[in-house]
This record gives sequence, structure tokens and C-alpha cells, in this order.
Amino acid sequence: MCGKSKTEMEMRLQEPRVWMRYAYALKQIEWKLRWIDVELAEQKNRQIIRAMNGRLKSVDSIKKKLRRKGKPVTFESAEANLNDIAGMRVVCYFCDDIDIVADAIRKQRDLRIVKEKDYVRNPKPSGYQSVHIIVAVPLTCGAVTEEIPVEIQIRSVAMDYWAELDTQMCYKKSAGQIKHVEREICGYSAVIAGVDNQMLELRKRIEMM
Amino acid sequence: MCGKSKTEMEMRLQEPRVWMRYAYALKQIEWKLRWIDVELAEQKNRQIIRAMNGRLKSVDSIKKKLRRKGKPVTFESAEANLNDIAGMRVVCYFCDDIDIVADAIRKQRDLRIVKEKDYVRNPKPSGYQSVHIIVAVPLTCGAVTEEIPVEIQIRSVAMDYWAELDTQMCYKKSAGQIKHVEREICGYSAVIAGVDNQMLELRKRIEMM
Amino acid sequence: MCGKSKTEMEMRLQEPRVWMRYAYALKQIEWKLRWIDVELAEQKNRQIIRAMNGRLKSVDSIKKKLRRKGKPVTFESAEANLNDIAGMRVVCYFCDDIDIVADAIRKQRDLRIVKEKDYVRNPKPSGYQSVHIIVAVPLTCGAVTEEIPVEIQIRSVAMDYWAELDTQMCYKKSAGQIKHVEREICGYSAVIAGVDNQMLELRKRIEMM
Amino acid sequence: MCGKSKTEMEMRLQEPRVWMRYAYALKQIEWKLRWIDVELAEQKNRQIIRAMNGRLKSVDSIKKKLRRKGKPVTFESAEANLNDIAGMRVVCYFCDDIDIVADAIRKQRDLRIVKEKDYVRNPKPSGYQSVHIIVAVPLTCGAVTEEIPVEIQIRSVAMDYWAELDTQMCYKKSAGQIKHVEREICGYSAVIAGVDNQMLELRKRIEMM
Repeated sequence: MCGKSKTEMEMRLQEPRVWMRYAYALKQIEWKLRWIDVELAEQKNRQIIRAMNGRLKSVDSIKKKLRRKGKPVTFESAEANLNDIAGMRVVCYFCDDIDIVADAIRKQRDLRIVKEKDYVRNPKPSGYQSVHIIVAVPLTCGAVTEEIPVEIQIRSVAMDYWAELDTQMCYKKSAGQIKHVEREICGYSAVIAGVDNQMLELRKRIEMM
Repeated sequence: MCGKSKTEMEMRLQEPRVWMRYAYALKQIEWKLRWIDVELAEQKNRQIIRAMNGRLKSVDSIKKKLRRKGKPVTFESAEANLNDIAGMRVVCYFCDDIDIVADAIRKQRDLRIVKEKDYVRNPKPSGYQSVHIIVAVPLTCGAVTEEIPVEIQIRSVAMDYWAELDTQMCYKKSAGQIKHVEREICGYSAVIAGVDNQMLELRKRIEMM
Repeated sequence: MCGKSKTEMEMRLQEPRVWMRYAYALKQIEWKLRWIDVELAEQKNRQIIRAMNGRLKSVDSIKKKLRRKGKPVTFESAEANLNDIAGMRVVCYFCDDIDIVADAIRKQRDLRIVKEKDYVRNPKPSGYQSVHIIVAVPLTCGAVTEEIPVEIQIRSVAMDYWAELDTQMCYKKSAGQIKHVEREICGYSAVIAGVDNQMLELRKRIEMM
Repeated sequence: MCGKSKTEMEMRLQEPRVWMRYAYALKQIEWKLRWIDVELAEQKNRQIIRAMNGRLKSVDSIKKKLRRKGKPVTFESAEANLNDIAGMRVVCYFCDDIDIVADAIRKQRDLRIVKEKDYVRNPKPSGYQSVHIIVAVPLTCGAVTEEIPVEIQIRSVAMDYWAELDTQMCYKKSAGQIKHVEREICGYSAVIAGVDNQMLELRKRIEMM
């Protein structure tokens, strides 16, 4: 039974009509953010966004996440329960740029804000920091308009570096040691936060010159 | 004076805030057409669109076209008088696919049809054939929604081949001979139309088997 | 047993160290051809190559081809018996451009010609026309140099259109009718050849003006 | 006269036959580095290279650099005096990865090392850190083989962040304050170096678990 539902889910998610909706919504968000970037750069007279990176969740990750949440591993369940099948990562130069970008997203009349989580003010136990905003993107095809969720993660360069190290280091470790590794890495999220603050101070000192 | 207005137009058109609107609208149309392609392929059980190609008109071409139309060569005039600053070419496998794609475009609730020209039923004197549809694409940035025109050209593979030959061959010829070249090429548009009809017949015979 | 060898082949072919060699060799050929294109355009004073398209054969196609050739379906067998794991299609504007591009490839000192097949002068029974050249591309990594085969297919726009129709139409038909479809399509390869010749004549007339 | 030579340089550098040699050499280096990345990832059991970024120097930057070096601002002078018309930036996760990548480049039999500069062990007065290796890439076209120089810059994530801030912050300041800004930013290169060392320590602690 499990084998069958998996196969069906995979097939459905790989149908062009299904995955294209997510790819299309992601592209919309990418262009929206590029535009926001141009407008902010003009307002602030410096670059705010350093990099953007979109991805569609793989079928394997979708299955894992459904199991972790205790939800049925079917296509309908994935569409109903996951908001991050399409995800966009936005990396800002400075940590106070995160709120600037988040505000600009909230002001877009054609996007509906579905959910927000501020892991910068309230970091995860692991040390992870980012602001997550889930937006509903309206897609019109023919006479039908549908809303597709996209998760936008906004973070600073330093937070992004930490998140990557976390992923890299944890992959390498067996179950027995993972706790120690996690403790080490979590400790270093303070180092990263320190860099963010020092860089912000630097920018402010230069801006006041 | 002329030099100055040119420079100003170039500068304005190269500002990210200006050209991005056209690039963004073009991307919207590309994704819309990809989606239409997926839906049509499912309905008809074969591929309809063979290739798509988007381009932003160069500043040089914009100037030339404004002069040809007897309009002022300024930025405002370009925005007011040209509908093809952003253009998308759609090449279909068979000549009866052109109407199928055109109809699908007309059915998109979020696009406004600005103008249509059917150079397939009424070819240009040069022999040029294509259906042109100018659509207005709504772009929302913040609280403001604006309409950006995009010209969609729809043609068959054979018509596309003819149009490319026309461009290539005419570039090579000096003013004195251009009339002869044009006459030759125009004569060949009948050859191309013949191919289109024979291919259509072939497809229909196969479909009836 | 069969299941196991398949899985192993898939795994091996999807290892970055394996497929990257083919992707790398393909990129080399793409750039080589772009360079040839620039040189030819300068010499002939017109564009010769209309489009290029590279692809890595999918694991499924590799398996099918090994079976058709009666070879073992293993990774080593694929590397030993297939010359077209990496393939590049080159589409020229006119049919006499095919020999021009083929000659330019033969003159590249760093490529070894492995095999040539002239399906333009000797079309396949199906009607298929193209010149195929298999070249060995030298790849150096560290102190080791290895030769990777790439198949280059050179054809005219009309031949390319025919090949695509052939693929599209044959997919649609059940086994019983495939013979009829093939006969129809084969008949049309003469139509295509006619277009090629008329276009060539047109170009020559224009060049002599 | 100056105006004329500029125009000539621009024209020559924008000829496809000229710039394509640099673009081609750059692509070669990109693929070489991707391969090195795959091999190193296998050896070390973790990712070494985080990002790669190639660029061709703009005509404006070429002119500026020739003037700064007191060289004639002509096309021939650019080809003779500049080794960084094509440049590739390689960003590594940890600062001890820089030597690993540099060594792998030195071992490539088909590349000739033209020059090396170790700004990690001997930072620039500005605080800038990176290892620069200029390699000569052999390009064969037809019977002719030519060597094209490419500058490879290798640095850690932290060094890369610093270099970007340096560029961003200096653009903003008028001539009078630039000294102060530079002093501030230079001071921060120590912060960055501190992060690099702490991250390295973290990785080593985890590797020993």
C-alpha cells in the first residue's frame, strides 16, 4: 500500500500540470523580489539583497516531511499540508535589511500573507535564524485563478553561512554523535550573530561619516 | 538637440526600473504560454508549440521605428507609441496550430487584448506571414498595478524559416538590388505555404489511420 | 540479476564523476562549434549555423539501445559500445552548409574523428537525413588525459523539421499502423528535400545579383 | 586621438573572434574547477567549493586598469599587459580549503601557471585576502593552439564577504572620507579572519568526534 501511494504521489508531482504551478509561482516571486531589490537599492542608495535562490522540494523531501508531521504520504496530503513545496531564499547584506525586505513583501497588494515566523528574534533551539514568510501567489490560467503557496526565507550572509555549515556538518555524523555536533554548531551561532552586529555597526559608522 | 534627446532616451530605457517592467511582463507571458503549451499538449495528445523566443527591442531599433512612424524620438514617445518593446515569438508545428494558440491567449482572463493582426490570412506584400496579438500584462508592485504591452507573434515552422531567410538575405544587399531580392524571396513564400499545407495533410492522414 | 545490473548501471551513470565527463566533453564541443560559427560567418559573410542543441542520453535510452544492439546492459558495456551518450545537434540554414561545418570539424587538431556516417547522401530507409560525425574529445584531469566520444549530427532546417515530425507522429501510432505512418512520412522526406533545393537555388540567385 | 584609440579598442574587444577566446577559456576553467570540486568532495567527504563566479572585464575597467599601470590604452596593450581580462572567483567553505584548491589547480597538466600571489599569507594594505593564480589555458581552433590567461581568485566565505563590503562601502564615500572608510573596513578584516579561524576550529572538533 505504502509503495503504491508513493508511486502515485511521485507520478502526480512530476506531471507538468502539477509542478509547473509551483515553478510558475516561484518565478513570479523571483521577479517580484528583483523589482523590490531595484526599488530598495534606489531608496537606500546601496544594495540590499546579495543573492536569491529558488528551489522546488524534491519528492523525497516531501515524503520525509509528511512522515515527520504524521500526515498521510499522498499527493493530496502534500498539497494540503505543505506550504514550502516552492521555496525562495533571500540573503541580505546586513541583518537589519531582513525587516526591510519583509516589509516590502507585506506591501505587495497581489500577494496574500499566509503565515510568518520570525526565527531571528526567536531562533530555533539548533541556533537557526531566518524570517519565514509564506505568501499565496495568484495564478490565472484561462478563466480560473488559483492560489499557490511559496515560502520565502530571509536571512543575513552570516546566518546563511551558519545554516549551510549546519547542513554540511550534520550529514557527516552518525546518530551517536549528532547531539555533540549540534551543541558545537549551536554555540557558533553566537559567533555568527556577533559578526552580524559588528558589520552593522561598521555600516552605521560609515554612513555617519 | 537630437543628440540630447537620444541620450536621455537611452539612459531612461536602460534604468533598471524601466526595462525591468518589460522584462517582467515578458517573463509572465513566457510562463503563461508554457502553461498553455502543457494544457494543449494534453488536450490534443501531441506537441503544439515547437519553440518560444522572447526579446526586448534594442534602443537602436526603438529609435528607427519611432522615426519610421514620424513620432518624436523620446522616451515618453517610445512608451506611448510602441507596443512591441517586449516581444515574444511562438513557433508552432503546423499552420492550423496558430489559431489554437491565439484562441488560448484570448481566453486568459488576466490579459487584455490590445490589438490583433492576422498576417496569415492577409500576408504582408513582402510575403511575411504571422498572427500578431498585442496583450496588456498587469504588473503589481506594492500598491500600484500597471499594464505593460507585449507583442506575441505566432507562426508555423515554415513561416519562421521564411522570415529568417528574409532578414538574412536582405541585410546582404545594397539599395539598388533590394527590390530584386525582395521579389525573389516573396516568390518563395508560396513554396513555404505549400510545405505547410502538405504537412497539415500528412498529419490529418495519420490522425485518421 | 537483470534488475541488479540495471540499478548498478543507473547508479554509476548518475555519479558526478561519470556523467560530468560527458557533460564536460559536450561543453567543449559546444564552444568549439560556436567558435567555428563565428569564423565561418566572417568568411562567408552570412550566418551558417542556425541552432545547436546538446543532450546527454537518458539511462532509459541507453538501456534500450544496448538491448537493440544485443549488448549486455551494464555500465561498462554502455561505455564500450555507445558513442552517443553525449550528442550535439547542429542545424544549418542551407543544405550545402552541412559539408562546410563537417569540414571545419575535421580540421580541428585537438579532435580525433572516430567515425562518420553520411545519411544525407545515403538517407536511412525511413527518410532520415543528417551527417553524423563521432569525435573523441581529450579531457585532462590532473595528470591523466582521457578521450570521450561525442556524436555530432549536422542537418538543414528542413531535415530537422522532418526528423521532429517523424518522432512526433510515430509516438502516436499503435504497432499495427506504424508501417503506414512510416511510409507516409518517408514520402514527405522528398517534399523536404525539395524545399532544401529551392532555398539553395534562391540563395545562389541572390548571391549572384 | 585618445577618443579614437578608445573606440578602436572597444570595437576590437567586442568582436566575437576576440572576446570569445576569453569566454571560451573561462568556460574551460569553470568545468575544470567543477571536476576538481567533484574529486575533492569525494576525497574529503565534504563540499570544498561553495560558489564559483566567472566574469569578463568590461571595456571601462580595462581602460582604467591600463591607465593606472601607465600603459597605452589600446587593444594590443590590453592583450599584452592584462592577465585578468577573464577572471574566475572560487569561494571555499573554510580557509584551509584555499590551499587544497590551489594545489589541485597546480596539478593540472594542461594548464601552465603564469603567476601566483598569496594575499592570504600577505594581505594587501586594505585588508584584502585571496590567493590569485594566473593560468594559461590552451585553446585550439583548427590547426592553431593559443594560450589565453585566466585569473583565478580563491578565498573563504568570510574573505569574500569582506571584499564585497569593501566594494560597496567605498563606492558610497566622497574623496575626503575615503581614508577613514578604508581604515574602518581594514580593521574589520581582523573580525573576518577571526570568524575563519573559529569555523576551522569548529570543523576540526567535529571531525575528531
